[in-house]
Amino acid sequence: MSLLESISRNIYSLDKTSIEQAKQRLDRLIKPKGSLGKMEDICMQLAGIYESKYFDSSKKVVIAFAGDHGVYEEGVAPDPQNITVLQFPNFAKGLCGVGTICKYVGADVVAVDVGINCDEKLEGVLDYKIRKGTSNMAKGPAMTRQEAIRCLEIGIEMSEKCIEKDYKVIGIGEMGIANTTPSTAIISTIVGCDPSEITGIGAGLKKEKLKHKADVIRKAIELNNPNPTDGVDVLAKVGGFEIGSMAGVILGCSANRIPVVIDGFISYAAALIAYKINPKTREYMIASHSSAELGTNKVLEILKLSPVLNMDMRLGEGSGAALAFDIIEASNYTYKNMATYDEVDMGR
Amino acid sequence: MSLLESISRNIYSLDKTSIEQAKQRLDRLIKPKGSLGKMEDICMQLAGIYESKYFDSSKKVVIAFAGDHGVYEEGVAPDPQNITVLQFPNFAKGLCGVGTICKYVGADVVAVDVGINCDEKLEGVLDYKIRKGTSNMAKGPAMTRQEAIRCLEIGIEMSEKCIEKDYKVIGIGEMGIANTTPSTAIISTIVGCDPSEITGIGAGLKKEKLKHKADVIRKAIELNNPNPTDGVDVLAKVGGFEIGSMAGVILGCSANRIPVVIDGFISYAAALIAYKINPKTREYMIASHSSAELGTNKVLEILKLSPVLNMDMRLGEGSGAALAFDIIEASNYTYKNMATYDEVDMGR
Repeated sequence: MSLLESISRNIYSLDKTSIEQAKQRLDRLIKPKGSLGKMEDICMQLAGIYESKYFDSSKKVVIAFAGDHGVYEEGVAPDPQNITVLQFPNFAKGLCGVGTICKYVGADVVAVDVGINCDEKLEGVLDYKIRKGTSNMAKGPAMTRQEAIRCLEIGIEMSEKCIEKDYKVIGIGEMGIANTTPSTAIISTIVGCDPSEITGIGAGLKKEKLKHKADVIRKAIELNNPNPTDGVDVLAKVGGFEIGSMAGVILGCSANRIPVVIDGFISYAAALIAYKINPKTREYMIASHSSAELGTNKVLEILKLSPVLNMDMRLGEGSGAALAFDIIEASNYTYKNMATYDEVDMGR
Repeated sequence: MSLLESISRNIYSLDKTSIEQAKQRLDRLIKPKGSLGKMEDICMQLAGIYESKYFDSSKKVVIAFAGDHGVYEEGVAPDPQNITVLQFPNFAKGLCGVGTICKYVGADVVAVDVGINCDEKLEGVLDYKIRKGTSNMAKGPAMTRQEAIRCLEIGIEMSEKCIEKDYKVIGIGEMGIANTTPSTAIISTIVGCDPSEITGIGAGLKKEKLKHKADVIRKAIELNNPNPTDGVDVLAKVGGFEIGSMAGVILGCSANRIPVVIDGFISYAAALIAYKINPKTREYMIASHSSAELGTNKVLEILKLSPVLNMDMRLGEGSGAALAFDIIEASNYTYKNMATYDEVDMGR
């Protein structure tokens, strides 16, 4: 059995007993029941994931993957492609958005090259390059099915390496010029809508180029005809290496009972791939923020997720996931430390 | 000239030069322009408030006020009135929601009694009691105009005491059984809608009692006929002591160029009162979270505010404001520490 198969067969639902124990404690805290909203939801979810009423969620990491995209040549992104190779080393150095926010919240960043269009080794970046960017999906499949499985398995492997190092919460991040294009293709395919409904400006595409971007995505879907019920097929036909690896992290976290914090639009596409491979992965996801990209609500409805942050961010990188780490930790701290009706006289 | 008058005449717009300097730095950080969304908005707002490109926003406090409400006797709240006096000392001790979250984020809590229905002095609570709860607004004005001015001035005084102690960001919080009722009355009056459109369950009122709650609010508005263009009059007729004091903090912060983080539904009512007294106060407000109460969007539209958190919280106390403190600090940290295009080679 392949690593992907064995992992995806070993994902189970959350532990109801621990969720109930957490709920009982939450209901004894000195507040109206449920009044802490998603802070309470997060604590119950973590209890169910960790199979324990109390849990340590303090050690956190964002695993970020970078890859380039053949579809870049269709003129769907405003930036030069080499921004990927120029920017990605800054993830490990803590100089970019996700790196800086991780420093603030006391989390780490692991940066993994799964397909950057360069020959050199990048400082501080793990080299798991599959090849130097996907093929142009507007002319054929982005990658082979074997490559799709490979990038999923790299994600699984990375998540398991981090879990071995005792990380308790894992966020996903990415870098790849043009990657809102494959992400929109994945989301359109799985949601079942026309790309024009959800094609956005990504990192700052001019509005007059939006129709072209949507047309390229529609052409790629029509040409490759991905099977929307087969996550691996969708990834292979219209995906990206970094997107597949992020989906792999979600699968790896789910099989190892570790919560996985999804970031913005690119990670929504990864979340849908993981969900199509095994719908139980949804139970392990925490949505960090609402991406400013269109299509956000369609994905979140399918995954039944509601982000904790509403920041209008559209940076990617894992920056929203990193920012949400602190909300998760504040929730756990409050759950553990707030007084209960047994401890103070509140007349009940 | 009264303190209220002198403060409300000394509120000026944000400093455009500092905002522009902050924007220039934000645009040089290694990211697409504007892609950090509200993190960037917060930094520009703080620069404009502090009149400085860089600023220290680290020392933070929630000023929380408690008061009881004569309208409680109409059966509009699910909890016994004495929860106010039982719960409020836990604010100062850090045992309740806002106290626990403040401990997590490294902020302080100042607890001020402006009208709790009790005779004893409360441990750790500042005593600025006006009287032991407002009058029942369903039978007459909640308070006199003099009392309304008094609670506004207490808020101003509290904010200035904190600013003297070098607090750089101030959040507002509250405690007062039944206080969603006057808050809904204030919001209905100023927004100009029927109370039934925005009357919610507050701390957990049974759904079958919602119509009664809305009827009581409508009756109070019809009986007292508050002038929606006069914030002091609305506060006096259908407000609460703690709500007025929160509005006073907003005025005090605005006059002293300190950002004020508003919490949930009760603080929306306070924000509207402050806004009616001087609309420029809006520029000093940061919205922390979307309250789960109805009416939230109507207020936020008037104030042109968009909360950073979407937590479905309905605890009050200042808990959402405290949670947002960390987002504000993360924004400032990122603004100061993220690399610029001048510092790293990004090909531009």
